[in-house]
Amino acid sequence: MNAPTHTNTRYLENAWYVAALSSEVQGQALFHRKILDISVMIYRLSDGSPTALRDRCPHRFAPLHMGKREGDEISCFYHALRFNSVGTCTHNPHGNGNIPDGANVRAFPLLERHGFIWIWMGEQTADPDLLPDFSPLEDSGPNAVGYTYMHMDANFELIVDNVMDLSHIDHVHGEIISTRGKLSPKIPKIRSTSRSISSRWEWEQQPAMLILAPFLPAPDAEARQYFDITWTPPANIQLSVGAVQGELSFDEAVMQYDLHTATPETQFTTHYFFATRRNHDTDNAEYNAMKIKAMHDTFEAEDGPIITGVQREMGDTDFFDLNPVLMSNDVGPVRVRKLLRKLIEEERADDYHKSE
Amino acid sequence: MNAPTHTNTRYLENAWYVAALSSEVQGQALFHRKILDISVMIYRLSDGSPTALRDRCPHRFAPLHMGKREGDEISCFYHALRFNSVGTCTHNPHGNGNIPDGANVRAFPLLERHGFIWIWMGEQTADPDLLPDFSPLEDSGPNAVGYTYMHMDANFELIVDNVMDLSHIDHVHGEIISTRGKLSPKIPKIRSTSRSISSRWEWEQQPAMLILAPFLPAPDAEARQYFDITWTPPANIQLSVGAVQGELSFDEAVMQYDLHTATPETQFTTHYFFATRRNHDTDNAEYNAMKIKAMHDTFEAEDGPIITGVQREMGDTDFFDLNPVLMSNDVGPVRVRKLLRKLIEEERADDYHKSE
Amino acid sequence: MNAPTHTNTRYLENAWYVAALSSEVQGQALFHRKILDISVMIYRLSDGSPTALRDRCPHRFAPLHMGKREGDEISCFYHALRFNSVGTCTHNPHGNGNIPDGANVRAFPLLERHGFIWIWMGEQTADPDLLPDFSPLEDSGPNAVGYTYMHMDANFELIVDNVMDLSHIDHVHGEIISTRGKLSPKIPKIRSTSRSISSRWEWEQQPAMLILAPFLPAPDAEARQYFDITWTPPANIQLSVGAVQGELSFDEAVMQYDLHTATPETQFTTHYFFATRRNHDTDNAEYNAMKIKAMHDTFEAEDGPIITGVQREMGDTDFFDLNPVLMSNDVGPVRVRKLLRKLIEEERADDYHKSE
Repeated sequence: MNAPTHTNTRYLENAWYVAALSSEVQGQALFHRKILDISVMIYRLSDGSPTALRDRCPHRFAPLHMGKREGDEISCFYHALRFNSVGTCTHNPHGNGNIPDGANVRAFPLLERHGFIWIWMGEQTADPDLLPDFSPLEDSGPNAVGYTYMHMDANFELIVDNVMDLSHIDHVHGEIISTRGKLSPKIPKIRSTSRSISSRWEWEQQPAMLILAPFLPAPDAEARQYFDITWTPPANIQLSVGAVQGELSFDEAVMQYDLHTATPETQFTTHYFFATRRNHDTDNAEYNAMKIKAMHDTFEAEDGPIITGVQREMGDTDFFDLNPVLMSNDVGPVRVRKLLRKLIEEERADDYHKSE
Repeated sequence: MNAPTHTNTRYLENAWYVAALSSEVQGQALFHRKILDISVMIYRLSDGSPTALRDRCPHRFAPLHMGKREGDEISCFYHALRFNSVGTCTHNPHGNGNIPDGANVRAFPLLERHGFIWIWMGEQTADPDLLPDFSPLEDSGPNAVGYTYMHMDANFELIVDNVMDLSHIDHVHGEIISTRGKLSPKIPKIRSTSRSISSRWEWEQQPAMLILAPFLPAPDAEARQYFDITWTPPANIQLSVGAVQGELSFDEAVMQYDLHTATPETQFTTHYFFATRRNHDTDNAEYNAMKIKAMHDTFEAEDGPIITGVQREMGDTDFFDLNPVLMSNDVGPVRVRKLLRKLIEEERADDYHKSE
Repeated sequence: MNAPTHTNTRYLENAWYVAALSSEVQGQALFHRKILDISVMIYRLSDGSPTALRDRCPHRFAPLHMGKREGDEISCFYHALRFNSVGTCTHNPHGNGNIPDGANVRAFPLLERHGFIWIWMGEQTADPDLLPDFSPLEDSGPNAVGYTYMHMDANFELIVDNVMDLSHIDHVHGEIISTRGKLSPKIPKIRSTSRSISSRWEWEQQPAMLILAPFLPAPDAEARQYFDITWTPPANIQLSVGAVQGELSFDEAVMQYDLHTATPETQFTTHYFFATRRNHDTDNAEYNAMKIKAMHDTFEAEDGPIITGVQREMGDTDFFDLNPVLMSNDVGPVRVRKLLRKLIEEERADDYHKSE
């Protein structure tokens, strides 16, 4: 009863959030997940395409995912009102069988791309062009890409902060992705657009990060490395990390292309999705499985406790209201927080003008 | 600390609620249960009659059910103030032993009838005539009646809604009480008084419900059936279901007489009591035990998850404020909600006039 | 997220609270505990002395106790800002390495005395003279004194109430400390100063309390006994209990000298610390260990359930707002509640004048 309530001030609503991994919604199952404080049911039609409806019957508010499939339609478990895949009531078994006015369930626009099912929770018309192109995830075939999902007891912006400021990695993580102290002193180069913030670091280290070194010509030798990360709204961070040796350019790097994306469940809990694709050893299914499991376990064991510890210390106070001491490594994440806030304010102003 | 608080707007207070099954309060035990947000202790005097006191010492607020019986009196565990069965302090072991002014515990009027202990939580004088006559529960002897108790994480009105609209039974429940699709299309006949709402359905099906069919002359043949249910305040629903074949009238039906009654623990948790009496196979103790267990398990496994799922989706928003889509099968439960609201408003107006 | 927030009206802030038993903070460990709603980290410097810092990095609010020791300094686990033992930032590994303004952690004054680490949470200058002298705890050597810690789900004042009114002991506790009904009728003699409330009981019983009787000349014979307890702010109660026989005065009693002290974790949870020192059988390590364990178990099994039961019945309502029926045995605890309230109001008035 004490769950935080949905407030327009905290979420960008007209945007694409990941609702689920494609692999989470399979067969005849009625998948359900709370997104932006709203219960959503997702299932696949007979043609395999996914559909999303509010997980609440408009009659007496029973969760629809408890209901029964009848082909591509869903019959509510409680009184058997039936809804089609766009939420229109198609059958009322009661009395004279008339469909009452308003007996519809809200449908949410979906896009299935790059291994994820993306959902549009806002009231404005869904705009597919607002989903960035993450197609490089699919460039190396199925044995060179992995996906995972984690639930975190923290506000989604704390997850974005964590990835936007990679200066934490030598302190929080172990040998496997260590920059051997080379990253922290670097001030990343920031690039901004009206809907993105990017940071780029370049440095040398010896040997290269252990996730990359074995695939370089001289695994023990010095390598040039880079991180390039780009945040796009609402909460995507595309991260590329690579290493080269000798005369090669970064375009020829041994690298991986990752996507971190965070979907608020509530103000204080988040669905954290992650995908990683590499351009080397691309037919090694065993290495692929080990790699995504290792990254999942790292987030759970190393980032997770820090992020949830920060959430507990922050309580329900706004980040800036706590007067954080900010440093050179905070430029990227602070720009992201400010741009997101600006986009939310613009969205609210739009809504206000429409309501006049 | 975040428990919902007691508000006059939500409960009818001057009314009889079931506090416990008679069988729950036995021997020397100090039974306790929270009712309408108030902790109550119930115990039986040496003559077997039950008494109810607020479960809180007026001295330092220790729960009295942690105390010790001294005959029909209760000694608080903390500092041994002793109270008699109407809540008057009879002994103070401290200092000069004077009984301080106001050292009394509120006693609640009780009636023990039909296998239940009923409690009156309001400030007005308890009126035994406001307890409906459920004596038919006792008409067939001890081997033809069963009682059970369930705790549900839902507002009590959701339980009333569930029983008042029996059109859900073919969808939620299994074969045993199926109407084979015959009930949903029927619009029940509604009868109202100033303190009751009744619904009656009549239909034919073949075979009859499996709870009744074996006791009919021709178990596999078509039967005429009826449901007759009557809500009375605050939250009782007396339900009769019967079946007949051939020339017999419904008065001669193979039937059962049930009572569903819901007592708020808090706004979001409810004590659900149920009794069922049948007029057939009345000396079969084994069948009797099996039947009440089966009904208990059905409520827990089938109604319970739906009702608590609805509660989660509704949160703390009022039912009508959620703009439910209402249909022909909702006439009965909606009339109940409106009549209960009217009775609560009348009670509050009475209190207001008395306080002027 | 629903934890009660820190309000000046409820805690005396400029006072010494026990933060930990000395034995709880050992070696290189970074101990942490929430005190007056604030997370605190405590650790011992290389010279053995304890230091306390707010357990929250000023950069991004990670808990510092998750960090790493570097000598007597602590490096935050998240981004490796390093702080010395008084909370000054000494190292920033990011960018040009400048220490940002304000990158300091609040340090809390500590005193380590009598087996406890005491903390000063207020904004005024810590005043060591405000810590009462509990040195008698150390008067009989290490085999005659024991310490323990308990966590209780109750407001700290309910723990103070419990110890300030010893008339409960015959009702709540067993034979071992029974006064055989002699204590309750006694009205204790109360003594007050501007910063203390004391109560003293004297009586005869046969035999003496079983914690004392075996050490008397005639264990089965009548003895004269006394309790002498003194509350000092914020929440210390020093309790002495003794017994004598024959011509001896109470100064020559077989006695124990105890300290009960309660530190609010939040408004509704408390750190309860206890120490007991005896003046008899002072070289018996085995008896000593048994005795502190027995007292710990008694608090947990007998006082604990009553105190937490009272808390549940009181909810978040103020004690006096519930109109308690007060008696002769409440004079001591009520004076303590009123004096504490007066001291808190004076503290708030001081703060108000300073802010003008």
